Amino acid sequence: MTEDISPKRTELSELGEFGLIDRLTAGLKPFNASTLKGVGDDCAVIDHGDHVSLITKDLLIEGVHFDLSYAPLKHLGYKAAAVNISDIVAMNGKAEQMLVGISVSNRFSVEALEELYAGIRLACERYKVDLVGGDTTSSVSGLFISITVIGRASKDEVVYRNTARQNDLICVSGDLGGAYMGLLLLEREKQVYKANPQMQPDLEGFDYILERQLKPEPRTDVLEKLRKAGIKPTAMIDISDGLASEILHIAKDSGLGCRIYENKIPVDIVTAEVAAEFQIDPVTAAMNGGEDYELLFTADVNDFEKLKELKGIHIIGHMTEKAEGEYLISEGGSLYPIEAQGFNHMRDKQA
Amino acid sequence: MTEDISPKRTELSELGEFGLIDRLTAGLKPFNASTLKGVGDDCAVIDHGDHVSLITKDLLIEGVHFDLSYAPLKHLGYKAAAVNISDIVAMNGKAEQMLVGISVSNRFSVEALEELYAGIRLACERYKVDLVGGDTTSSVSGLFISITVIGRASKDEVVYRNTARQNDLICVSGDLGGAYMGLLLLEREKQVYKANPQMQPDLEGFDYILERQLKPEPRTDVLEKLRKAGIKPTAMIDISDGLASEILHIAKDSGLGCRIYENKIPVDIVTAEVAAEFQIDPVTAAMNGGEDYELLFTADVNDFEKLKELKGIHIIGHMTEKAEGEYLISEGGSLYPIEAQGFNHMRDKQA
Repeated sequence: MTEDISPKRTELSELGEFGLIDRLTAGLKPFNASTLKGVGDDCAVIDHGDHVSLITKDLLIEGVHFDLSYAPLKHLGYKAAAVNISDIVAMNGKAEQMLVGISVSNRFSVEALEELYAGIRLACERYKVDLVGGDTTSSVSGLFISITVIGRASKDEVVYRNTARQNDLICVSGDLGGAYMGLLLLEREKQVYKANPQMQPDLEGFDYILERQLKPEPRTDVLEKLRKAGIKPTAMIDISDGLASEILHIAKDSGLGCRIYENKIPVDIVTAEVAAEFQIDPVTAAMNGGEDYELLFTADVNDFEKLKELKGIHIIGHMTEKAEGEYLISEGGSLYPIEAQGFNHMRDKQA
Repeated sequence: MTEDISPKRTELSELGEFGLIDRLTAGLKPFNASTLKGVGDDCAVIDHGDHVSLITKDLLIEGVHFDLSYAPLKHLGYKAAAVNISDIVAMNGKAEQMLVGISVSNRFSVEALEELYAGIRLACERYKVDLVGGDTTSSVSGLFISITVIGRASKDEVVYRNTARQNDLICVSGDLGGAYMGLLLLEREKQVYKANPQMQPDLEGFDYILERQLKPEPRTDVLEKLRKAGIKPTAMIDISDGLASEILHIAKDSGLGCRIYENKIPVDIVTAEVAAEFQIDPVTAAMNGGEDYELLFTADVNDFEKLKELKGIHIIGHMTEKAEGEYLISEGGSLYPIEAQGFNHMRDKQA
C-alpha cells in the first residue's frame, strides 16, 4: 500500500485537526490578486472590486459528526446547510449560493436522500440561499456530506477573526452549552434503547436542547440587530467548537490576551438542569461543548451602552494585551487559564 | 433507522447519477440575482457585474473513484485537483482558488496526507490556483476527497454547454480512450499481482495511457490556442464520462441533434494497441471510457479553416436539428445511435 512506504509514520491523533491543517498548508503564497484571505478564518475571501465573495466548506461524516440512530435525515440536511451558512454569518456576510456533495452507500434509498435534501432545501429557503450544484456519488459504506457555501459582503462590512483590539468588549449571542447537553441526552437514550428496545426514549421537556443539537440556526438575526444598532464587530467567529476554542482563535490570531467572566456566560435553564443531572458544570459545557453556532464577537468599548440594550447579546469579558494571557475569571475571582478542549474530531475519534 | 421508515424504497441504482440529481434538485428557483446558473453545467455561475465566478465541486471516493493499490497518493491529489480545474476550463474560465475537504481513517498517517497534499499543491502551482481553505476530519473507514474550485471569467467569455447551434462544428482536443485503457491495464496488473505477488507488474511502454489515467491535465493550453486563433466555442464541456455522454449533454441541453464521424475520433497509437490486446474497439473506449478530461466543444462553421490549422484540435462532426437525433457514423456510412454508457458510478458500483 502506498501509504505505508514512508519511513516515518506520524499518527493523525498526534497533531489534532488544527495542527494538521497548519502542517498541510504551510508556506502557501497566493498567485492571484483576487485572493484576499486564504486558510485561517471562517471563510476564504475573494476580491471582486467593491464587494467580496466569502467561501466556506465543511464536511459531515457519519459515525464522526452524526449518528443516524437519533439524527433524522431531514434534520441532518438542515444542520449540514445551517453550519455552513453560519460560517458566512461569522464573517458578517450574506450566504447566497450552496453546492452539495453527497456520497452514500446503497444502504440508502432515493427516498432517504430526498429526506436529507428536504432538510437542506428547507435551510436554503429559510436563509434565501440558492442550491447551485454539487456532486452525488456512491460510497463503499456510510454517508458523507460535503457542503460549500458562497456568500457576499461589501468590502467594508467583512469582519475577520484576527482584528480584535486591546480593551475591546467580548460578546456572545444567545446561550451556550445547550447543543452539547442535547447530544449527551441523545447518547444516553440511545444506550438505554440498546439495552432494552422496549423502553421509550425519555426526551419530554428537553425540546430546547434537542433542537440546539439537531437543528442549529445561523444567527443572521444578530447581524441585523447589530447593523440596526450601528455596531460593527471588530472581530467575529461562530461557536462550533466551544467558547474556549473560539476565543483562543480570536485572541491568538489578533495577538492579544483575554478575560472572560464565568458568571457572565449565558446558559439556558434547561441546559443547566440537564448539566446538573449529568454532573457537569454548565460552564464546562459552554466552554468546551461546541455546536451552539452562536456568534462570538468583539466590539469597541464605546459601544458598551448600545450593546447593553440589545436583547440576546451578552458582554462576557474583554481583550487584553498578549502578555496578560487568556483567562476565565470565576465568581470568586480566581483565574483559570482557557484551554481548547472542544470537539477535536481528529483526536477524539481516532484515539 | 430513519432511512427505513419510508413506505416506498427506490434503489439509487434505479435512477443513476443524473436521474438522481434531477430528482433531488427539481423545482429549484433562485432567490438571489447573483445566481446566473445553477445545477446543469460544469460549474455554477455567479454574477459580479463585469465578471463572473465559476464554482465547481467534485468528490473522489476510495473504492469508487480510485484504488490506492495502484494510484499513488501524490498522483491522486494531483488528479483530484486537476479534474476540478478542468470543470472551470470547460466554461472557458481561469481557476483561481481551491478548497479541499478530506476525510480519512486512522489507517492513514500524517505523512500519507502530506503526500496527497503534495499532489494537490503541485497541481495548484502548475495552474496558479490558490489553496484557500477546507476541512480535514476523520472517517470511520476510507479516504474521501471533496474539492471545490472557484474560477473567474469576464461575462462575454463564459461558454455554457446548452448554447450550441445547428450546423456548428463538433471539435475535440487531444485524443480519447487512453485514460480508460490505462485503467484496464492497472486493473489487470493488480489481478496478476494478487494471484502471484512474485510477479512484477508489466507496465513498460505504456507510460502514455498510465499517465492519462493517473495524472490528467486540464487543457488550459487549448483555451489559449483558441483565444489566439480568435475562436470562441459556442458550447463546451470537458470529457469526464466519455465522448458519448458529453456530446449528449451538449445536444440535449441545446435542443439539437448531432452527427459524429467514427473515423474522425482521435485515438493515440498506444491506446489502440492496448485496446486490441483487450479486444475492445478503441472507438468504444473513446465513446464510453471517460476520464480523458479533454475539451469537447462546438464552433461556428465559419471557423472551419482556422480550426483545421490548429494542431491537437480535431473536427469530429456537426450539430443537426433535434429531429435528426444523435448518431455515430461508421466508416462504412452506417448510423449508430449514441447512448451514454459512461462511468455511471451510481449504477456500476451499486449493482
